[in-house]
Amino acid sequence: MQKVLIDCDPGHDDATAILYAAAHLDLVGVTTVYGNQTVEKTTDNALSLVTLLGLDVPVAQGCAGPLNGIVQHGGDLHGKTGIDGAVLPEPDREAIDMHAVDFIIDMARRHKGELVLCPIGPFTNVALALRKEPRLASWLKGISVMGGTTQVGNTTPVAEFNIWCDPEAADIVFRSGAPLWMVGLNVTRQVGVTEKDVARLMAGGPVARIFGGLFDFFRERLREVHGLSTASMHDPCALVPFIVPDLISYRHCPVEIELGRGPARGMTVCDMRQLTTGKLENIRSMHAANCHVAVGVEARPLVDHILDAIIDWRLISEKK
Amino acid sequence: MQKVLIDCDPGHDDATAILYAAAHLDLVGVTTVYGNQTVEKTTDNALSLVTLLGLDVPVAQGCAGPLNGIVQHGGDLHGKTGIDGAVLPEPDREAIDMHAVDFIIDMARRHKGELVLCPIGPFTNVALALRKEPRLASWLKGISVMGGTTQVGNTTPVAEFNIWCDPEAADIVFRSGAPLWMVGLNVTRQVGVTEKDVARLMAGGPVARIFGGLFDFFRERLREVHGLSTASMHDPCALVPFIVPDLISYRHCPVEIELGRGPARGMTVCDMRQLTTGKLENIRSMHAANCHVAVGVEARPLVDHILDAIIDWRLISEKK
Amino acid sequence: MQKVLIDCDPGHDDATAILYAAAHLDLVGVTTVYGNQTVEKTTDNALSLVTLLGLDVPVAQGCAGPLNGIVQHGGDLHGKTGIDGAVLPEPDREAIDMHAVDFIIDMARRHKGELVLCPIGPFTNVALALRKEPRLASWLKGISVMGGTTQVGNTTPVAEFNIWCDPEAADIVFRSGAPLWMVGLNVTRQVGVTEKDVARLMAGGPVARIFGGLFDFFRERLREVHGLSTASMHDPCALVPFIVPDLISYRHCPVEIELGRGPARGMTVCDMRQLTTGKLENIRSMHAANCHVAVGVEARPLVDHILDAIIDWRLISEKK
Amino acid sequence: MQKVLIDCDPGHDDATAILYAAAHLDLVGVTTVYGNQTVEKTTDNALSLVTLLGLDVPVAQGCAGPLNGIVQHGGDLHGKTGIDGAVLPEPDREAIDMHAVDFIIDMARRHKGELVLCPIGPFTNVALALRKEPRLASWLKGISVMGGTTQVGNTTPVAEFNIWCDPEAADIVFRSGAPLWMVGLNVTRQVGVTEKDVARLMAGGPVARIFGGLFDFFRERLREVHGLSTASMHDPCALVPFIVPDLISYRHCPVEIELGRGPARGMTVCDMRQLTTGKLENIRSMHAANCHVAVGVEARPLVDHILDAIIDWRLISEKK
Repeated sequence: MQKVLIDCDPGHDDATAILYAAAHLDLVGVTTVYGNQTVEKTTDNALSLVTLLGLDVPVAQGCAGPLNGIVQHGGDLHGKTGIDGAVLPEPDREAIDMHAVDFIIDMARRHKGELVLCPIGPFTNVALALRKEPRLASWLKGISVMGGTTQVGNTTPVAEFNIWCDPEAADIVFRSGAPLWMVGLNVTRQVGVTEKDVARLMAGGPVARIFGGLFDFFRERLREVHGLSTASMHDPCALVPFIVPDLISYRHCPVEIELGRGPARGMTVCDMRQLTTGKLENIRSMHAANCHVAVGVEARPLVDHILDAIIDWRLISEKK
Repeated sequence: MQKVLIDCDPGHDDATAILYAAAHLDLVGVTTVYGNQTVEKTTDNALSLVTLLGLDVPVAQGCAGPLNGIVQHGGDLHGKTGIDGAVLPEPDREAIDMHAVDFIIDMARRHKGELVLCPIGPFTNVALALRKEPRLASWLKGISVMGGTTQVGNTTPVAEFNIWCDPEAADIVFRSGAPLWMVGLNVTRQVGVTEKDVARLMAGGPVARIFGGLFDFFRERLREVHGLSTASMHDPCALVPFIVPDLISYRHCPVEIELGRGPARGMTVCDMRQLTTGKLENIRSMHAANCHVAVGVEARPLVDHILDAIIDWRLISEKK
Repeated sequence: MQKVLIDCDPGHDDATAILYAAAHLDLVGVTTVYGNQTVEKTTDNALSLVTLLGLDVPVAQGCAGPLNGIVQHGGDLHGKTGIDGAVLPEPDREAIDMHAVDFIIDMARRHKGELVLCPIGPFTNVALALRKEPRLASWLKGISVMGGTTQVGNTTPVAEFNIWCDPEAADIVFRSGAPLWMVGLNVTRQVGVTEKDVARLMAGGPVARIFGGLFDFFRERLREVHGLSTASMHDPCALVPFIVPDLISYRHCPVEIELGRGPARGMTVCDMRQLTTGKLENIRSMHAANCHVAVGVEARPLVDHILDAIIDWRLISEKK
Repeated sequence: MQKVLIDCDPGHDDATAILYAAAHLDLVGVTTVYGNQTVEKTTDNALSLVTLLGLDVPVAQGCAGPLNGIVQHGGDLHGKTGIDGAVLPEPDREAIDMHAVDFIIDMARRHKGELVLCPIGPFTNVALALRKEPRLASWLKGISVMGGTTQVGNTTPVAEFNIWCDPEAADIVFRSGAPLWMVGLNVTRQVGVTEKDVARLMAGGPVARIFGGLFDFFRERLREVHGLSTASMHDPCALVPFIVPDLISYRHCPVEIELGRGPARGMTVCDMRQLTTGKLENIRSMHAANCHVAVGVEARPLVDHILDAIIDWRLISEKK
């Protein structure tokens, strides 16, 4: 079973990603980072989630802010707790006494060649780990991120929140040399939980009802702010290549992060051109392909597959 | 009849734009700029075209390179002459003894409130005119450009050739305050001349046969370089709002040019988000809407409408 | 006698430069630009100055703002009129009916190989002229600018006002290929008019008394804002290589303009290193030497020489 | 006695800094970083140095490259070993089993309010530590760096090697909020070991003779590359405020790091203006003063004081 480590900032869709990974993969740990809320709150939320789900998975707290020092939080969409919309249980444990950066390095060393790292919040922890331990990239089976977009952004016209929070960290990840998958807003916005889906969850067991409440809140916020009609399940999409690979299609192409201070800062510049030659004087080619970029999704089957994991959670956890 | 001045670098699609404007609008002049070839060649081509079409339209030569001094030419796609694929007649006249920059200012002053300026090459002439005469923007009815893209670029992954040649000039145009229409690759690439269309032209009169030859060459180059199956008629699209406005749909939104030296340099950053509020802490809104950006096109009817103008050229010119 | 054309924004020290050039050189014209005040005011001031000095020199008005469109004025130092401190005569003429950009090109064409262009305000006019007429750089004997600094700036920690007003224009000038002299704040701040000098002027004729008033005002402003004890005669320094070349020493070295949006924007990055080799892996060399940068000055003799021109103005103008 | 932790990349002048700190201060540890050579070599050199000097000081190895991933080494000046010119003893110990980043955090936690951190190589370790442990800046008594310049650079016209290797890391340090001292090339280049000084060392004991050999090599390289006549003792200068504070004078002012990709990248932009007001429209003030920047030095007394520490090393170490 594929080993994964989730680096996250729960966060409504982060919560779903944790459950989805625990249901189908070997989740070796959860690390936390600022983002949707402060790192203290996202750590609390991660601990509450592993408590709720009864997971035997260590949680390690990470960075409180990005490399450039200017902290942004996503409270607008995720509320005061970072995961408003349902009452999560009090954590039955504490974060382990190891920094997320070191835990990431440690897990990668222990599971050489077998671990997939899934950063689904700002990439600060992963960037620090890559710089602290230069062999990290070579130890990983891959890095599968939720972040960026090939088209429209959310935080700026062309930048997505996770990347925009720490573009310099994202640049470190995209130039790390590790096998890389990126699922961005262009795909994840299609993976939307509808009002009907919420009703289905609300009719389920206690875990399903909690997730129903979370999605209900998140859907309302996305409607108010971005005019969307469904609750995008951004983060679980990063796990899809290792669970139901046929549901998201990828294209291998060059991706660079724009680091300037202009209007495109934080953009994931993906070379989606269908160039048949790169030798012409007025055609600028980028570096070699470094990332599998998600370009298509079977949205409805994927939503259903994720909802099934939530609704059948008791069965799944008993079987484990 | 709408007065237009075309600032261009012919160029295959520029040639079509000149014919299309002459067929349906009051074309008050043609100015030339480097781009698809050197300004000497694009001026020669413009003169040959007005000769071929028998137009009584002044041609004024403009700038030989961009503000930042680094000249790019599009010879890869347009060939050695800038308009390979057919033999154009020798010009029966010379360019007027006035620089394009001054001719643009002069025409705008003469036709205050009535003139639409159509830059369909790099924007250097227009930028210089706007800086030389600060009242220019207020004298124009509008500026309708072919350039940029809301999605994939051609010269770089996210930048289109006309903008990328002189991003600083484009920035001057987009911040000029003049009413602005932009049709970019996202739309113009759909407006493609097929092999069948070429055959239809080849069966027409002498002008049609020349354009048939031009499109045949251009289609082949676009196929070889960009893997396209049709010859995109980029430039005539800038005239559509004044001829057949229903065929292209626009969205009024903020557009900024990325001027940094990173991978997004020369991008037209269009705010295509459907934000319902701009007051949230982690949502960056851009400046106010400054441009009507083309987002949709009735491609087949538009191609046919343009082809009709070419095929019926003798009728049209006799009627005039 | 050396032919010069002064492109300026009078401005206290610009006024002195006009007089100093008229006293010792063949001043073929004065062009104006925004900067120390609006271009309307700096043109008025230039006209008043040629009236005061009885010069038969055409004045052509130029640009109202920089390439990037964000206008800055130096009213803090030069007052509401742009040249507060003395009452100048009403102009006895108007600006010629030709834009500064065209006048610069015209004079350079007429005096091929003989004309030195002296931009002592923001470089917008000169940049537009260089782009409008690509042969301009080759027609000039040289360009001698007042602008920039090798050390401390005034408008920002490292940028001088003239360059900072329009860095993109400065970049065009510094990469034009014309022989280039730059005198910056590192030298011009040493060329300071003292209280005693003001008194000497006040005891002179009517022209001297007016300049005495101007320097008195300017000295007070520089004291209040920059803590300086003397009135820097920045602009006349650009003429020194053609009048008293021994008084300023130059070093031929590479100069580039920083165009980014960071803290060094508008800096004249001068390579003042004494590198004996450029081939080492961790030593970045810049482009080839493109500018003679002023590095030393005999300040007292230069101040006296300029003051003499002011005080002896009647003699000088009668002799002419 | 002042506690200091030196973060370095020995390196000739780093070696001197270690000895100088050990002679006069409480040196709690040495951390290493890439820079003058690979981190493996600089670690070896640090271990050899503490062996040579008989110091009971832990050495912790740190980062192998900068945040942006593009590694530079100073082998041109420091030779193949990073410290060519003398044979150092084989290390009698190994680096401790803790990463430099963690050792820095650990020492700062242990010696809260008492420790001065002295980064005298690229600032990558310190930047990672500041981001990994947000409280670090508040735990430190201060950070005293060798790096940057107020005038001429060495690696580029305006950038010094340590900053230029990792400008993003330097930016983290300069915006950390910790009390900050910076001694740059403008001062350290004056602190030069002469041929006579080398002779004096060569006449001394075994430690002095080794340093004599090191300086001799370094002086020759600086002469060949930078045309200098003496061997600059850059790094020990960072310790001067805590040993002989009167020998270097500082000015408290704002410092920002230029992070753009233009010619000023990696510059320490120091606001050395003597502004008496910051409220004027065309005077840009920077952020508040954040750093004590070295502006003057009593060079000869400082060189002698450092040489004395080398020559009297046996006495000093016996007394300890």
